[in-house]
Amino acid sequence: MGKIKIGLMGFGTVGSGVWKIIQENRDKIIENCGYEIEVSKILVQDLAKKRDDAIAKEMFTDNPTDILEDENIEIIIEVMGGIEPAKEYILEAIKRRKHVVTANKALLASHGGVLMKAAKEANVKLLYEASVAGGIPIIHAIKESLSANRINRIMGILNGTTNYILTKMTSEKMEFETVLKEAQGKGYAEADPTSDVGGYDAAYKLTILARLAFGIDVKIEDVYREGITNITPIDIEYATELGYVIKLLAIAKEVNGEIELKVHPTFIPKEHPLAAVGDAFNAVYVKGNAVGELMFYGKGAGDLPTGSAVVGDIISIIREGKHQNKRVSEKNEKNQNRIKDMGSNQGEYYVRLLIKDYPGVLGKIASLFGKYNVSLSSVIQKGKEEPAVSLVFITHDTVELNVQYALTDIAKLPEVIRIANLIRVENV
Amino acid sequence: MGKIKIGLMGFGTVGSGVWKIIQENRDKIIENCGYEIEVSKILVQDLAKKRDDAIAKEMFTDNPTDILEDENIEIIIEVMGGIEPAKEYILEAIKRRKHVVTANKALLASHGGVLMKAAKEANVKLLYEASVAGGIPIIHAIKESLSANRINRIMGILNGTTNYILTKMTSEKMEFETVLKEAQGKGYAEADPTSDVGGYDAAYKLTILARLAFGIDVKIEDVYREGITNITPIDIEYATELGYVIKLLAIAKEVNGEIELKVHPTFIPKEHPLAAVGDAFNAVYVKGNAVGELMFYGKGAGDLPTGSAVVGDIISIIREGKHQNKRVSEKNEKNQNRIKDMGSNQGEYYVRLLIKDYPGVLGKIASLFGKYNVSLSSVIQKGKEEPAVSLVFITHDTVELNVQYALTDIAKLPEVIRIANLIRVENV
Repeated sequence: MGKIKIGLMGFGTVGSGVWKIIQENRDKIIENCGYEIEVSKILVQDLAKKRDDAIAKEMFTDNPTDILEDENIEIIIEVMGGIEPAKEYILEAIKRRKHVVTANKALLASHGGVLMKAAKEANVKLLYEASVAGGIPIIHAIKESLSANRINRIMGILNGTTNYILTKMTSEKMEFETVLKEAQGKGYAEADPTSDVGGYDAAYKLTILARLAFGIDVKIEDVYREGITNITPIDIEYATELGYVIKLLAIAKEVNGEIELKVHPTFIPKEHPLAAVGDAFNAVYVKGNAVGELMFYGKGAGDLPTGSAVVGDIISIIREGKHQNKRVSEKNEKNQNRIKDMGSNQGEYYVRLLIKDYPGVLGKIASLFGKYNVSLSSVIQKGKEEPAVSLVFITHDTVELNVQYALTDIAKLPEVIRIANLIRVENV
Repeated sequence: MGKIKIGLMGFGTVGSGVWKIIQENRDKIIENCGYEIEVSKILVQDLAKKRDDAIAKEMFTDNPTDILEDENIEIIIEVMGGIEPAKEYILEAIKRRKHVVTANKALLASHGGVLMKAAKEANVKLLYEASVAGGIPIIHAIKESLSANRINRIMGILNGTTNYILTKMTSEKMEFETVLKEAQGKGYAEADPTSDVGGYDAAYKLTILARLAFGIDVKIEDVYREGITNITPIDIEYATELGYVIKLLAIAKEVNGEIELKVHPTFIPKEHPLAAVGDAFNAVYVKGNAVGELMFYGKGAGDLPTGSAVVGDIISIIREGKHQNKRVSEKNEKNQNRIKDMGSNQGEYYVRLLIKDYPGVLGKIASLFGKYNVSLSSVIQKGKEEPAVSLVFITHDTVELNVQYALTDIAKLPEVIRIANLIRVENV
């Protein structure tokens, strides 16, 4: 039985998941790739920290060169997270013609282009299935299975924490802050939840998906980003009444040769397959011009689901052989600068205003929408909540900038207390 | 620009889908694999039949040797269906060291082992993503992305026609026969619907999935099979009342080292992701010991979705190069004879009896269940439908044979008119 030696850089949640899978599924892995995977070294920050006794002390090192300079190590697994020194180590590994598997979404979103170019030039593999949606094989699907398709649209629930919060807010009619605290108590949300609830985490992942699906060198700054902190039980109630569910979606779609890239809370029809994705689950919905609608659903985080993706990538590399002779190994990144400005996006919008209910106010507001060519498909005014009432609109298909202009004018009306929310609708 | 020549054997729904995708997505395909795919010849049965004028007449042939003996053709696409002559052509192509892509589920289910062995020995690829669930990349996912997992369970909605019928029966409270006729009128169901409504089509696909996921040489006869013809609106109503949805599921699961293989109508909790899969959509739910729950959703049939899977396989072959040097190319089929007998399966059961409502009848029936150690979790008796009433039970976890024994005895009670239905429950 041959052995393939790997170096594990990082031993947090994902790293220990990778370790566990390699030990526990040893037979299955050998059956699937014909080789045993052997972890040669594990890079950690603090050698003094107490670890699993089953792992020999000599296995750990705090010196990256123990892995990078070991010529017997064919593959390095980067699961440290963060930009540096992860980037430096990966580039060094590539230079030394080692294959790389990484779960590092922030690094790939910011420097993916550079890393992929380096790997291509060195003729080594750089695989990153684990960086998006944990155990869901969406990267592989886009790269391989959907390669006969022109991808028109990707819509993902890519952040488990926010999906858990929105699911809970919906089922229990609870406030955002209350659910967040509860989630933090249970360890489902970080002490500093900004990356999740602000939509940053989802934006990283969207960057990686869009680069792959559309062959463009997307930067994280290209993604319009809005979190879920502004969602209230009132909005959720209106959504339900109107036949929608509110989800934080990461959306990349091609519209007339331009790409829209955005992460924001979204109204989706309750019949849409994404609407049924509850709790901390992730899902990615893809539309291709041949395959039609596809959805992938699963656990987007956790040691074993993410580890499953990492070890799957290791096995791929082993099965393809060290010096793969693929006729073409990576897509060409063409089509630059095609990313669309948010204001020029077209769609439907949910608008909730808080107003003083004087006679004639609806007419004034409707006229201002009309002034900017925003036509309305639904208006709901519910029983008074003194001294203010909520007035809810769903628009017909319209250009986002027009809605923004109309709302700027509407906000100035004396009867309007404030624009309580604006949420985009995806009626797919 | 290099060209890869392929031979298309069959030009029905899938074949013409493959043709369309190769023409329409030409640029995308070149971008993804670096080569142009060129169809050299199309094998058809009837040369006289009228076809798309855009395709040159010389493209068509009714002589298979025009494809099999053409040394410039590197890949053959078998989309004729049926066992012979498809099997003969594929074996001949393999002998001539051509790669093969097939969508032929019946052939793979019956002779997959032989074909895969031949391909392995000849060191050519035999890919068949399109044979299960159309455009959903489930074969690729099991082969590649989930290769670090021990797969515990697969549950699939693998037949669009039956899912359409059950969805319609549920939403419109219609009888099976009525919906079937409507579906036939719309072309959603065949004139002879046996293969779909009898569960044969799903059983073929399950055979292919189980062989791959569990590494066993499954035969179609190993699959317990039951169709949906016996499902009534009354059963669906009880299912809804009890919090379930009825789906025709193809199930393969490992229980204590043995494999259960079965296609039958199933009660699944309404919160389960498979429960939301409506209309003619397909979905495959997979549970792996590392990745946890995954579900893949999409169109399971149609020219373009199925063609997408075929062309995806062609691109895979091209990208990997003609003479792949994978360290190990296919799984070893070990673990023979591990398939479990249906009677020894364990689970929960929905039982509906039609009885004459005399005093004491419930006691008699409950005693007979008790005699065979079948304990009950729910009993529902609804308002009388003279002269008979429906009596519905959900059992606790029990061995199937015990339920069968109990029902044999229960059927003999004078108060029991008949066992109206027995449907298995999956509480996952």
